[in-house]
Amino acid sequence: MSHVSEALIQALEQVVGSPGLIQDPERMQSYLSDWRNAYCGKAALVVRPASTAEVAEVVRLCREAGVALVPQGGNTGLCGGSIPDNSGTQVVLSLTRMTAIRAIDAANETITVEAGVILQRLQEAATEVGRLFPLSLGAEGSCTVGGNLATNAGGTAVLRYGNMRDLTLGLEVVLADGRVWDGLRGLRKDNTGYDLKHLFIGSEGTLGIITAAVLKLFPAVRSLTTAWVALPSPQAAVDLIGRMRTLCGDRLTGFELMSRQSVEFVLQHVAGCNDLFNEVHPWYVLIELSDTLIDANLGQMLEDGLGEALEQGETLDAVVASNEAQVAALWALREGISEAQNHEGPSLKHDISVPVSSIPAFIEATDRKLKEAFPGVRIVAYGHVGDGNLHYNISKPVGTEDVPFKAHADAIMHVIYDATVAFAGSISAEHGLGQAKRDAAQHYKAPLELELMRTLKQALDPDGLMNPGKLL
Amino acid sequence: MSHVSEALIQALEQVVGSPGLIQDPERMQSYLSDWRNAYCGKAALVVRPASTAEVAEVVRLCREAGVALVPQGGNTGLCGGSIPDNSGTQVVLSLTRMTAIRAIDAANETITVEAGVILQRLQEAATEVGRLFPLSLGAEGSCTVGGNLATNAGGTAVLRYGNMRDLTLGLEVVLADGRVWDGLRGLRKDNTGYDLKHLFIGSEGTLGIITAAVLKLFPAVRSLTTAWVALPSPQAAVDLIGRMRTLCGDRLTGFELMSRQSVEFVLQHVAGCNDLFNEVHPWYVLIELSDTLIDANLGQMLEDGLGEALEQGETLDAVVASNEAQVAALWALREGISEAQNHEGPSLKHDISVPVSSIPAFIEATDRKLKEAFPGVRIVAYGHVGDGNLHYNISKPVGTEDVPFKAHADAIMHVIYDATVAFAGSISAEHGLGQAKRDAAQHYKAPLELELMRTLKQALDPDGLMNPGKLL
Repeated sequence: MSHVSEALIQALEQVVGSPGLIQDPERMQSYLSDWRNAYCGKAALVVRPASTAEVAEVVRLCREAGVALVPQGGNTGLCGGSIPDNSGTQVVLSLTRMTAIRAIDAANETITVEAGVILQRLQEAATEVGRLFPLSLGAEGSCTVGGNLATNAGGTAVLRYGNMRDLTLGLEVVLADGRVWDGLRGLRKDNTGYDLKHLFIGSEGTLGIITAAVLKLFPAVRSLTTAWVALPSPQAAVDLIGRMRTLCGDRLTGFELMSRQSVEFVLQHVAGCNDLFNEVHPWYVLIELSDTLIDANLGQMLEDGLGEALEQGETLDAVVASNEAQVAALWALREGISEAQNHEGPSLKHDISVPVSSIPAFIEATDRKLKEAFPGVRIVAYGHVGDGNLHYNISKPVGTEDVPFKAHADAIMHVIYDATVAFAGSISAEHGLGQAKRDAAQHYKAPLELELMRTLKQALDPDGLMNPGKLL
Repeated sequence: MSHVSEALIQALEQVVGSPGLIQDPERMQSYLSDWRNAYCGKAALVVRPASTAEVAEVVRLCREAGVALVPQGGNTGLCGGSIPDNSGTQVVLSLTRMTAIRAIDAANETITVEAGVILQRLQEAATEVGRLFPLSLGAEGSCTVGGNLATNAGGTAVLRYGNMRDLTLGLEVVLADGRVWDGLRGLRKDNTGYDLKHLFIGSEGTLGIITAAVLKLFPAVRSLTTAWVALPSPQAAVDLIGRMRTLCGDRLTGFELMSRQSVEFVLQHVAGCNDLFNEVHPWYVLIELSDTLIDANLGQMLEDGLGEALEQGETLDAVVASNEAQVAALWALREGISEAQNHEGPSLKHDISVPVSSIPAFIEATDRKLKEAFPGVRIVAYGHVGDGNLHYNISKPVGTEDVPFKAHADAIMHVIYDATVAFAGSISAEHGLGQAKRDAAQHYKAPLELELMRTLKQALDPDGLMNPGKLL
């Protein structure tokens, strides 16, 4: 890869104008490290094109010059996928000026948006036409659609609505050679050859740059019931989700599992969060039912399901939220975990998935191995049961120092990923690979699968200038 | 491509055994033409491997010999995708001996099946564990899972459950070089690189041979209500589906549109089918609501929705089925169309899709153009409103001969496909391209999209031996 010449900078400025070009080191700073400061890089400059045509021209110019591009959206990723390397030769291509909502077709239940639209703005635009855009995740106030697509974002509503991939009907992509593929179709059925959009979704900017998408909308939710349930074990959670799915079908829109350790950190560190039961229980789930009907009788359905579950010993206690404040209080317990864990020293994060049926055995086996190998470590396990997705995060033993604990990070990771693979799981369920898990993926994925991925990379980005060093 | 040598035949027989090899012209016949006799080809032989290892070895041997393979499932396709060419040099690879249901994981809501499993058998296996496998189409008694995957099959339940692609979590594929990609994962979330399975789904056997899949199961349906509704126009159907989706959400599992002409052919030619209203109406829809609850109050919900629709002038009349026989009678009116049309001479079939919101304008514009250009032609338009998918089929004018009508087939097709593309639609919604639409796709798809498809074909099947002449 080449260095950025003065001629290239001038040519890029011709394309994006001076407000679209950032060279000042201080102004570049927020584009060069992630919000957790886990990944820091350097860049020759940051370009901020305002249209697909400008993106295409930027890609064409950089390719001619042999300069590598790092596409970036809201920069909220957890794996360093949008942070440049340390060479200072890469160009960050920020999509944040492409914020148009190009079209809403309520009858077709579709919305066409540009890559830089913030997820929350997209959700609001759907609400304004009486529809729902269901993707929901912690960073929704600042992450962008382009990043959601590039990483195939997940979150809490995947159980019912699927990942970002499942919510996408069409894409517009600037290819590695600067040509624009217009695949912005709003069709539910289209069988006219290879499905190109699925190649780009989840490819983390390594095959091309997504500039716009046609996304699915859904009927608005008009009733909602939320409960907090104590359980004896992960197996009880798997049994309970099966029971609730059988009873309620797709009314079950949330089913979040948390270990006592996870909840305890929240109770200790997040102001205003209180335990909901007098007794301490080993596991909890947050259950959400929702419906398009105004009077959907969800409360009764939930009580029926939980009543049966209590009789079967699947649950130990339960409380149903009776107003919006109580609903918010339940979600605060769930959503506070990540922040709360930071108060206990470094949090070694592992975003894994296994088949739902394997969750209990995975937790049992992995907890045991970790506790044997690293006595005293605290396991903060929580996640989305319906997706088999666990955030299996580790904090240091009480009263120990950060440095020796962090020295075990790789060894701990290998225990967890070994178990994940043994249970036919994935070492990155919803966060992608980026820089963080690239090497682990090389180790844990089948060689043939990696070879196929490299074949596709070579076919679509032969010069290797699209986000090099990420994913592959 | 090379001819099949005696040495290759012997080597193949070593692999699949003599019951797995068919050379007798009479016994080969059923593999060489489709059920409608629309496509007929020749083949050097038919191989019927019984395992993935055998498929891999067959592919490896044929590749070494430079012999092209035509994979085939239940041979129920409508576009000739599984019929060999006329050279007599190709080998048909039938997957129909691979009929194992390898695993059912009810807690994970997944089933792992081999490519040769009949769709109906798969549906039954799901029912046996109290689950639903929702894909449903006319050929379900004889089509296979492998064919469903290769063509990304659709049908009537896509509105609620998606296409075959959306129902697939993992694949096992024999690649063009005979190596086996084991992507049989049962995970709802897995973001560890490019999503390879989506390349093979819908690729009609041109990139590799799908030998097994992990598919999603759903909670069983325990209540169902079906209605037959008369409407003034396609616009009324679009308005009504919006109303019903808003009200009922995903309880709406069927919404089939039929023109009066379509229904009239059924009434004339299918024994036991009767008109449900005293008056003749221009359009009809069949509405199905379903729910996992036993007592879901669907009848009331349907009456509420239809009552509002009647007030708004969206509907003209409606009847709700009150028992299973009546439900069957309603579906018979819908499912009889294809057969009934055959009694009126050649049926020129066009399986197209447009955005749902464009259905009324598409029908209006295309009807008008066709009637101007080909006076007297009878338009048999029906389909799946929620998917924007119309079967827009044409019969000859009353009292005319087949031959002059068929001479207009290409011109009629161009009128319809031109309109489809003008409305940002697809010339093949759910049937694929096969041989039938390959040239049309070359004409109607964007050159860049075709180029990307050829790039992928070249990357994954550089020798061009996987179902050559199909799709691309």
